[in-house]
Amino acid sequence: MSRIKRNERIGAIVSILSQRPNKIFTLNYFSELFGTAKSTICEDIAIIRDIMENYDLGSVDSIAGASGGIRYFPEISRRNRYEFVKELCDKLSEKHRLIPGGFLYMTDIIYMPHIVERIGCILAGYFVEHEIDFVITVETKGIPVALMTARALNKPLVIARRDSKVTEGSSVSINYVSGYNKRIQTMSLSRRAVKNGSSALIIDDFMRGGGSAKGIIELLGEFNISLKGIGVLIATKEPEQKLVDNYISLMVLDEVDEDKKIVKISPSRWV
Amino acid sequence: MSRIKRNERIGAIVSILSQRPNKIFTLNYFSELFGTAKSTICEDIAIIRDIMENYDLGSVDSIAGASGGIRYFPEISRRNRYEFVKELCDKLSEKHRLIPGGFLYMTDIIYMPHIVERIGCILAGYFVEHEIDFVITVETKGIPVALMTARALNKPLVIARRDSKVTEGSSVSINYVSGYNKRIQTMSLSRRAVKNGSSALIIDDFMRGGGSAKGIIELLGEFNISLKGIGVLIATKEPEQKLVDNYISLMVLDEVDEDKKIVKISPSRWV
Repeated sequence: MSRIKRNERIGAIVSILSQRPNKIFTLNYFSELFGTAKSTICEDIAIIRDIMENYDLGSVDSIAGASGGIRYFPEISRRNRYEFVKELCDKLSEKHRLIPGGFLYMTDIIYMPHIVERIGCILAGYFVEHEIDFVITVETKGIPVALMTARALNKPLVIARRDSKVTEGSSVSINYVSGYNKRIQTMSLSRRAVKNGSSALIIDDFMRGGGSAKGIIELLGEFNISLKGIGVLIATKEPEQKLVDNYISLMVLDEVDEDKKIVKISPSRWV
Repeated sequence: MSRIKRNERIGAIVSILSQRPNKIFTLNYFSELFGTAKSTICEDIAIIRDIMENYDLGSVDSIAGASGGIRYFPEISRRNRYEFVKELCDKLSEKHRLIPGGFLYMTDIIYMPHIVERIGCILAGYFVEHEIDFVITVETKGIPVALMTARALNKPLVIARRDSKVTEGSSVSINYVSGYNKRIQTMSLSRRAVKNGSSALIIDDFMRGGGSAKGIIELLGEFNISLKGIGVLIATKEPEQKLVDNYISLMVLDEVDEDKKIVKISPSRWV
């Protein structure tokens, strides 16, 4: 077999890393794959790190120690992040999105794979240093956002259901009060889905009063699971006092006036 | 600015292509990004195409014509596809997955982002030549598979709901009979979610009688949408006669015997 060129190694490594964000690959893995010395792979990685940085395509970290190696994270620079979120705000503020009741139609945008993938990368970027065992959401609308956040973090996704399902075995259910219209709702989680004592990140598409998030927290409490953070796509400005404290959102819904056909959405401060 | 090396261009192009499977990028796009002649970009692409093929990382196509360019598809070779699906079958056949009622617990596997991403790539690979406007599924369990299939195809995801939701505006609802236990169920689709006269691919996690798929087809009929295919993760062997004809599945559930604790799942023939 002819000797493998640096070009080829770089292309293959970038492709492999992109397909598994946040997974640690050992230098040995690449060294064996290409039949090349580790020192050569190290040089390749240095080049790849520069490429990623120069073109704002993500970051490549070296992890030291016995279980060390390299890891790709689809990070987005502050500037591009802001521009992306601002553009999302503008799109979602279009008047024709208003639905009777003061709701916003947004699934056409947030179910577009490349958009929700980017949303997931940004949310994951905020929580990447937290030690998280899994990402949890409650069905339905938040699932794409939560899956893409889980993808960027390389962690499993867990979905709490509105009703317990026979296909998921024994489950724990709770009743909770929605933060906005004070309705009693049910949420359940399969016993098999989570490990006692692990740690979770809650991801959802929308937060008004914070009732759903509080419901998930109570459900997690039943399994002795610690909460590492809450991330949502859009949070409403009012009520300012939510039922949960520590959450971040990508966007803030400042105002919806159905009569005057006004929608105001702005990027959240940390974006 | 110093001249950009081939190494760097190749790394950047691979990363950009990986982040947007099935999207056509013009040669001009890369030519402008790097300030390099189109002929040089063509040479880069030829190298990338070889890398992808040699390491089974996907395929790179050239699209001719005015709207032409290059396009990456996360294709998986026949051999690796079979091995991956066989491994999935083995994992899902473990006895401890049996749930009273003869169901299989599988969300821990099919909600793992890198697994469901690969499942999505394989399903998308089967349908990539069909002209599809969107991927549709019905909540909840099939959503991750459908989203990842939509990602690989670079098409929007549409989710039909079990109940109509106030947050999605006016919707069309149908009643249908589930194929297995003959229960009447409801399914609804937001009017805004789809365009009249477009074409759809149905993706779901599981098919027993085919009732859900038939329900979606009826719903699509209300919008004059043509069906281009049905892909499911697992289809049961029995009943052999489903309520829909043209579907493919990745796996076949041959047998579940709750008493004897036997589960038999095998790769589908086309895999």
